[in-house]
Amino acid sequence: MLKKAEDSSSVLRPHFKTHQSIELGRIFKEEGVDKITVSSVEMAKYFADAAWNDILIAFPFNPLEADEINSLLKKYKIGLLASCPDSIPLIIDLIENQTDVYLKIDVGSLRTGFNPANIDSITEAVAKINESDKHVFKGFVAHAGHTYNAKNHSQIKDIFYHGVYELKKLKNIFGSRSNNIIISWGDTPSCSIIENFKGIDELRPGNFVFYDLMQLNLGVCKFDDIAMTLACPVVALHHERNEIVVYAGAVHLSKEKAFCKKGFAHFGMAVGYDDDMKWKFLEDECYIRRVSQEHGIIKASANIMSKVSVGDILGVIPVHACLTADLIRDHYYIE
Amino acid sequence: MLKKAEDSSSVLRPHFKTHQSIELGRIFKEEGVDKITVSSVEMAKYFADAAWNDILIAFPFNPLEADEINSLLKKYKIGLLASCPDSIPLIIDLIENQTDVYLKIDVGSLRTGFNPANIDSITEAVAKINESDKHVFKGFVAHAGHTYNAKNHSQIKDIFYHGVYELKKLKNIFGSRSNNIIISWGDTPSCSIIENFKGIDELRPGNFVFYDLMQLNLGVCKFDDIAMTLACPVVALHHERNEIVVYAGAVHLSKEKAFCKKGFAHFGMAVGYDDDMKWKFLEDECYIRRVSQEHGIIKASANIMSKVSVGDILGVIPVHACLTADLIRDHYYIE
Repeated sequence: MLKKAEDSSSVLRPHFKTHQSIELGRIFKEEGVDKITVSSVEMAKYFADAAWNDILIAFPFNPLEADEINSLLKKYKIGLLASCPDSIPLIIDLIENQTDVYLKIDVGSLRTGFNPANIDSITEAVAKINESDKHVFKGFVAHAGHTYNAKNHSQIKDIFYHGVYELKKLKNIFGSRSNNIIISWGDTPSCSIIENFKGIDELRPGNFVFYDLMQLNLGVCKFDDIAMTLACPVVALHHERNEIVVYAGAVHLSKEKAFCKKGFAHFGMAVGYDDDMKWKFLEDECYIRRVSQEHGIIKASANIMSKVSVGDILGVIPVHACLTADLIRDHYYIE
Repeated sequence: MLKKAEDSSSVLRPHFKTHQSIELGRIFKEEGVDKITVSSVEMAKYFADAAWNDILIAFPFNPLEADEINSLLKKYKIGLLASCPDSIPLIIDLIENQTDVYLKIDVGSLRTGFNPANIDSITEAVAKINESDKHVFKGFVAHAGHTYNAKNHSQIKDIFYHGVYELKKLKNIFGSRSNNIIISWGDTPSCSIIENFKGIDELRPGNFVFYDLMQLNLGVCKFDDIAMTLACPVVALHHERNEIVVYAGAVHLSKEKAFCKKGFAHFGMAVGYDDDMKWKFLEDECYIRRVSQEHGIIKASANIMSKVSVGDILGVIPVHACLTADLIRDHYYIE
């Protein structure tokens, strides 16, 4: 991802909400990354304390956290996002130190952000930011979350080209030699399959650090790319129905579901580990079919049942690595 | 719940996995509760450190946590659960101090536990526990998780009477004057609608401390009984489509879904607060219709849109209070 960004003269500002780990962050730093994205003020503080000093909080400005943001701004370079017109006067009123303010642009996911067709609204927002003595309008940020609903690569590419077109149009309208504004693009599906990011100043994918079954189902990664499994102790075996109970429930994996090729819903795919703690496929495909708060139920073949014991550890590839990572709270075994 | 248990000469051993809060635990203690249920060794440690000294870990024994359990057993009374035959020799081998060992009985939820029809397997398990010098076979524990799939009160009652019949049968077979074994029953839906628990030694409901929309949909609580809301800062307003963006996503509410009467799926119901911070209905019914990691999207009426500002706090009644409580990690404002 870093290579692709460099080849397009883009800056990679990876989203650290996926791993939320200082230790994993260090690997990025060693590769030369010095700007990051987070999705909460708490996360910004966490990484600022670990010597990251250029952090974009890619979540709509929350006025109730103005004090915490003001504290951070005394020491660190923190970028803020305004996602609707009402946020602008609040940022201007409540944020004391000079800050980079970005406008979130809704490129079609309908989650949040300014409508790129509403030039009047954007013009007014940019003007208000620039009129304030303290703040600097820094650019346009988009996250094409609707790539997660795409049916194929072609749809992902359509979303990418359409969204980037909107951002470039805005940059043409609002950019000038003096203001040096940028356009910033996120989402792992599009960043994974697009090769050329020319004209996009910044890229903010997050999930690509691990990938997961959701990305696999979207066709934007291969099994070999998946870098995170949840280590799940086997706590009960029910041979009469070929089920393995693992200590891995909704509070570890989340309730994010996916569908496997056989058509049934599941909460993750069971795998094994080799001697180096690298995950490997089991001899037969097995999935977590049900979860409650702490229990996960794997439906297995008789073959797998005969080889697993209570006290063993199975791996589970999560459906959504970001949620699993959030739930395990930086308890990584990094290999 | 305490009154109902006392009226039936049952002991209430509430499940603290729902709130996971020392402060809320204190309210139970003030009411005379001195035995609790938890669903992990970590939770047992948390409450043991807060002076709870009779804790049942109602999760299948995990051999990989034997060291942590042994440490706890040096100071506290901890009950352990065996959910399948393979667990018995592991408990006997790995657990050093004297412990109460319970057998989990599967009364039909097909999650885990011994099949009550398989008397040979239960006989062998009980014999092995009793043969060990250290451990005491203490009784049979059931959790009728399938009440959560019931269509009406009548089905919940059927599950209750059927399951309790199985437990009482086992107590008759394996109980004697000398061994003083108990039967223990959990699950909030049945404990909420059943009045008479005669013959059941112990009750372990958890969710009733808060209730939630799932319990409401099951018809086992009323809106007035719901005691927990998630306080959600409003971070963006999208008037063109009547949507409110709140800082409340999958990492706060979980991805547990429910259906409202109008037939659509949602992740929680939006409410307001009165001056005493008690939740109250909004003038129009609104739900969280979409969640991503940190964002929640409320579809609102024009009326509600006109009354809400960025920086306000809306409440959200969660679909599943246990998962929301786990995610917010004891950040309660208790009123």
